[in-house]
Amino acid sequence: MFDDFPKGPHRVPFDGSFKLKDASSAPPKGAPTKRKECEEILAGVVEKIAEHQQRLYASDDHSILMIFQAIDAAGKDGTIRAVMTGINPAGCKVTSFKVPSAEELDHDFFWRASKALPGRGEIGIFNRSYYEEVLVVRVHPEYLQDERLPGLPKKPSKKDLEALWAERYESIRDWEKHLARNGTVILKFWLNVGRDEQKKRFLERIDEPHKNWKFSAGDIKERARWDDYMAAFEDALRETSRPWAPWYAIPADDKDYMRVAVAQVLEQTMKAMGLDFPELGPDDRAKLAEMRKLLEEEGR
Amino acid sequence: MFDDFPKGPHRVPFDGSFKLKDASSAPPKGAPTKRKECEEILAGVVEKIAEHQQRLYASDDHSILMIFQAIDAAGKDGTIRAVMTGINPAGCKVTSFKVPSAEELDHDFFWRASKALPGRGEIGIFNRSYYEEVLVVRVHPEYLQDERLPGLPKKPSKKDLEALWAERYESIRDWEKHLARNGTVILKFWLNVGRDEQKKRFLERIDEPHKNWKFSAGDIKERARWDDYMAAFEDALRETSRPWAPWYAIPADDKDYMRVAVAQVLEQTMKAMGLDFPELGPDDRAKLAEMRKLLEEEGR
Repeated sequence: MFDDFPKGPHRVPFDGSFKLKDASSAPPKGAPTKRKECEEILAGVVEKIAEHQQRLYASDDHSILMIFQAIDAAGKDGTIRAVMTGINPAGCKVTSFKVPSAEELDHDFFWRASKALPGRGEIGIFNRSYYEEVLVVRVHPEYLQDERLPGLPKKPSKKDLEALWAERYESIRDWEKHLARNGTVILKFWLNVGRDEQKKRFLERIDEPHKNWKFSAGDIKERARWDDYMAAFEDALRETSRPWAPWYAIPADDKDYMRVAVAQVLEQTMKAMGLDFPELGPDDRAKLAEMRKLLEEEGR
Repeated sequence: MFDDFPKGPHRVPFDGSFKLKDASSAPPKGAPTKRKECEEILAGVVEKIAEHQQRLYASDDHSILMIFQAIDAAGKDGTIRAVMTGINPAGCKVTSFKVPSAEELDHDFFWRASKALPGRGEIGIFNRSYYEEVLVVRVHPEYLQDERLPGLPKKPSKKDLEALWAERYESIRDWEKHLARNGTVILKFWLNVGRDEQKKRFLERIDEPHKNWKFSAGDIKERARWDDYMAAFEDALRETSRPWAPWYAIPADDKDYMRVAVAQVLEQTMKAMGLDFPELGPDDRAKLAEMRKLLEEEGR
């Protein structure tokens, strides 16, 4: 099981000690934040990712799953676009998870995610994921009614809910461990935008006509639950950042830095995986030599 | 989480104490084995299952997953047919798992099973399942090569393999617990046919022209690995029979008894689930009264 994930400045500890206050929404001191400089760094990193990707595809034993979670306007879509543009789309699939359908609600909460998992050799990207089950659903436990969970009272007590979140964290740890053992390398990114920066971005979405489509009134309503969301993120990251599936708390107030930081984690992970084109053993090489002979003798 | 599964004579203990020698392939003393008597009992049990099924569908919070595992000629197909004929096929889906495809091998070993899971209100039947990963694959570890598991040497040592089976048992326990918590009631049946009885059935398949299609030369080859299969079943049942997903070791030498025994476990489980048509609260009843009034006033 691969567990040599880069630590860097943003990896969430695996011992359950994570605290929100340890995670800054601003880039670390001295980090590159100038647009042009960041774009140049990013281009170099993406180029390396594209090279690793060819080896990932050729060696065909691991897959990579990148999970992105964040509150609104943190920059999930833009980051996915910036980091993944330039790599071969044939080996890369992005899945955006919206409100679950009736058929999805009729199954356990990994069901729809399982169907979208990348196969060996592929990179899969989840724009939101089963983590919504311990994030938005935790902030809005009334959504649980639609899940028809047996044994959960219509009006669950605080104790009922705490037991439920604990079970869900356990299920997530267990399932991710199973996936990791079977060759899925899991990278999880929390794009950590600050409260003031979110306000600024919402105002832009309202004021700039070409950004209007991104804005919905519901976003403001969710913003009012800021502290509840932060508490949910803190618990989720603390309970599910583990050596086989780490979380990275990426500062998201500066979009240029955020993109570089995400790309670097991916690149360093792929590097640590030691991906390479498969080498043939002597038997296979002998067979290739035979093929060469056949081709050369053709038509003589 | 439902865990009130009937014990009956065949439930495999949950404490890891299961031994092969405790499981007989012959029916218990005094059990019904006469064809006509068994058919009458079965018809009565199936009728009750069909009634429970309507309530399962209406209450729409649990699903039932029945898993069948056995060596060749134990009677999986015939048992599924006999027990499930008479229930509404709209709420029931049988999935037979064969040799995994290339796409399936490119994913973790729950992936194809997850896609086939029953939704709330439904009964799903797995004819073979992910348990093949600790049964046939354990007897034939050379199949692991096709799974391209990272970290597993090309020629794994005994220790490597033991660690792998232990991991797989753990993954199975964890995943089944997750499914159970989210409303899936899991029943697992090992159809335990004796060595002599299998020989008799193979000879019938060879001698009776209308049974020839069921026979393949490979079956005899697998029969030679009898003891290895039995050891794999013993470990799998011991390691994965748990309060949330019990195994039943069903004697399979007598087909008539076997069918009754499987049907009874299903019926008793559904009974213990306390399935019922959902009752409306006072608000919903008031709404219905209003609808009635509207209908009556229509066209006056």
